Amino acid sequence: MNKPIPTYDNIVSAHKRIVSFVHHTPVLTSSAINSIVHNELFFKCENLQKVGAFKFRGATNAVLSLNIADLNAGVATHSSGNHSAALALAARTQGVPAYIVMPETAPDIKKQAVEGYGANITFCKPTLEARESTIEEIVKHTGATFIHPYDNFNVVCGQGTAAKELLETEAGLDVLITPVGGGGLLSGSSVTARALNPEITIIGAEPENADDAFRSFRDGTLYPSVSPQTIADGLLTSLSEFTFKIIRQNVDELITASEESIALAMRMVWERMKIIIEPSSALPLAILLQHGKRFKNKKIGIILSGGNVDLDNLNYFFSAGKSRDLTG
Amino acid sequence: MNKPIPTYDNIVSAHKRIVSFVHHTPVLTSSAINSIVHNELFFKCENLQKVGAFKFRGATNAVLSLNIADLNAGVATHSSGNHSAALALAARTQGVPAYIVMPETAPDIKKQAVEGYGANITFCKPTLEARESTIEEIVKHTGATFIHPYDNFNVVCGQGTAAKELLETEAGLDVLITPVGGGGLLSGSSVTARALNPEITIIGAEPENADDAFRSFRDGTLYPSVSPQTIADGLLTSLSEFTFKIIRQNVDELITASEESIALAMRMVWERMKIIIEPSSALPLAILLQHGKRFKNKKIGIILSGGNVDLDNLNYFFSAGKSRDLTG
Repeated sequence: MNKPIPTYDNIVSAHKRIVSFVHHTPVLTSSAINSIVHNELFFKCENLQKVGAFKFRGATNAVLSLNIADLNAGVATHSSGNHSAALALAARTQGVPAYIVMPETAPDIKKQAVEGYGANITFCKPTLEARESTIEEIVKHTGATFIHPYDNFNVVCGQGTAAKELLETEAGLDVLITPVGGGGLLSGSSVTARALNPEITIIGAEPENADDAFRSFRDGTLYPSVSPQTIADGLLTSLSEFTFKIIRQNVDELITASEESIALAMRMVWERMKIIIEPSSALPLAILLQHGKRFKNKKIGIILSGGNVDLDNLNYFFSAGKSRDLTG
Repeated sequence: MNKPIPTYDNIVSAHKRIVSFVHHTPVLTSSAINSIVHNELFFKCENLQKVGAFKFRGATNAVLSLNIADLNAGVATHSSGNHSAALALAARTQGVPAYIVMPETAPDIKKQAVEGYGANITFCKPTLEARESTIEEIVKHTGATFIHPYDNFNVVCGQGTAAKELLETEAGLDVLITPVGGGGLLSGSSVTARALNPEITIIGAEPENADDAFRSFRDGTLYPSVSPQTIADGLLTSLSEFTFKIIRQNVDELITASEESIALAMRMVWERMKIIIEPSSALPLAILLQHGKRFKNKKIGIILSGGNVDLDNLNYFFSAGKSRDLTG
């Protein structure tokens, strides 16, 4: 299906639609981190968003954009990550059902999060075929609307509202950096930033070990993500034709970071800023640490995408990010 | 020395003095936690303050209240906790020396924090006598002004500015709860809250295992804190005559919480709010979890006092706070 490219007007409309349901998250700064990276950073804390991720913006906008008949029939998706939790809460907030398909192998903590928001969960075999056939049957049976985590016009418009709040709070940013996985956050943010500040440099940050978006952007061809191995488990997915098109139109550059830089950046945010971010959120700071010489004395906006980590499993992250100084 | 009791005017003056040096920290809410405790909570996030604790407010106000000759001679203290880091940064911000006496047994992470802010550290034997004689010698030798962590008029006025920002953001609070250790935060907050809202209920939250303030308040006699054993390591100290007097004048009640409630509350804030708090910060939520039936449908302000924890030592905290539901 050919979706139109969102305009900034679409994002303004999305913001009006969702504003009373989402947190207006704070923008935090850290002079300690500023002096390490020699830039002035402004962190938009979507880790402090409801369900702990920016995904609640897009999911809420998608739900609120349905007509009343479709809304009452509910929504469905088959993500196992933050989008499912976000869609579950967005649906519950409007009093309509959410149908979530998850692989039976999903970690308990993710199952519990989605269950906690009152969704109807159906477990399936951990294959793409099983997911798709299961969701298809549910949609057919219930009349629910399938909401893709990023290949969806209203989802992308919702994700673009975080950058809107950030740029309205901090005028005069030179650079905006977001992580990139499926491209929903980066594409939505890029529409906002390009409209509000035509001169801003817009960058997507991606793990070296999951660099399909980087290569796609470089070559002008959409490559799939094949068996990526990264601690940034929110960034495993491939771009869609839709998000890729928006990104090519607005984004200046994609830059990758090593696993070590990601772990170091994550630990730095926890220690210096006292906020919990998931590894995927650490990508923008990770590229600044790893490619520090490329940016000097700039005002840089960063979207911290989420804060959902398993607190029983922290050693895994912190053993990696302890030792070395990658700056300079 | 007889110090005057601070008035709200003193706190307003302190706020003007420090406002350009401190973070105006955000007030966060969590509908998940609200529905667990059946109250509406407003968390003033001093864990996101510079040096990761409200202590930076009091230290900054104390430094900025010195006359120019005293200021240039620098400041000194012998706390091993957040106050030392706060005083070190407050002094460095004004370009004057800070002399910190620490027991040679202090954990490396605390030494590094204070060193990182450029203080002159002197190590001494881990006894009160050694601390006091060492600091006395330094003060005599350098002319630096000794700044007590809470038995100090300007420190208490500075600590009262967090409640000022909170009550200005959230009018109509029914209750204000802060942790209580030496009483600097509680006493300063109580002056502010009583002035801005005469009807508000002001509560200090203290570990059961370090309940000297609770007993002092109950009996009207100042008891020392004797070998307390609690994970809330910022709350080991005793009230001073000064803070005790202010607390008796303004505070309605002290309530204690068990170690298990503290650990549970701390984990709940990490998991649900995605911010890092130290165990001492968890006391207000801990008393709500443990004595839940006492408060229903109230608007409750909570000051999260700090976020300094050793990320290499988290299992210690999280093993305690995992399992049981203490609500209801």
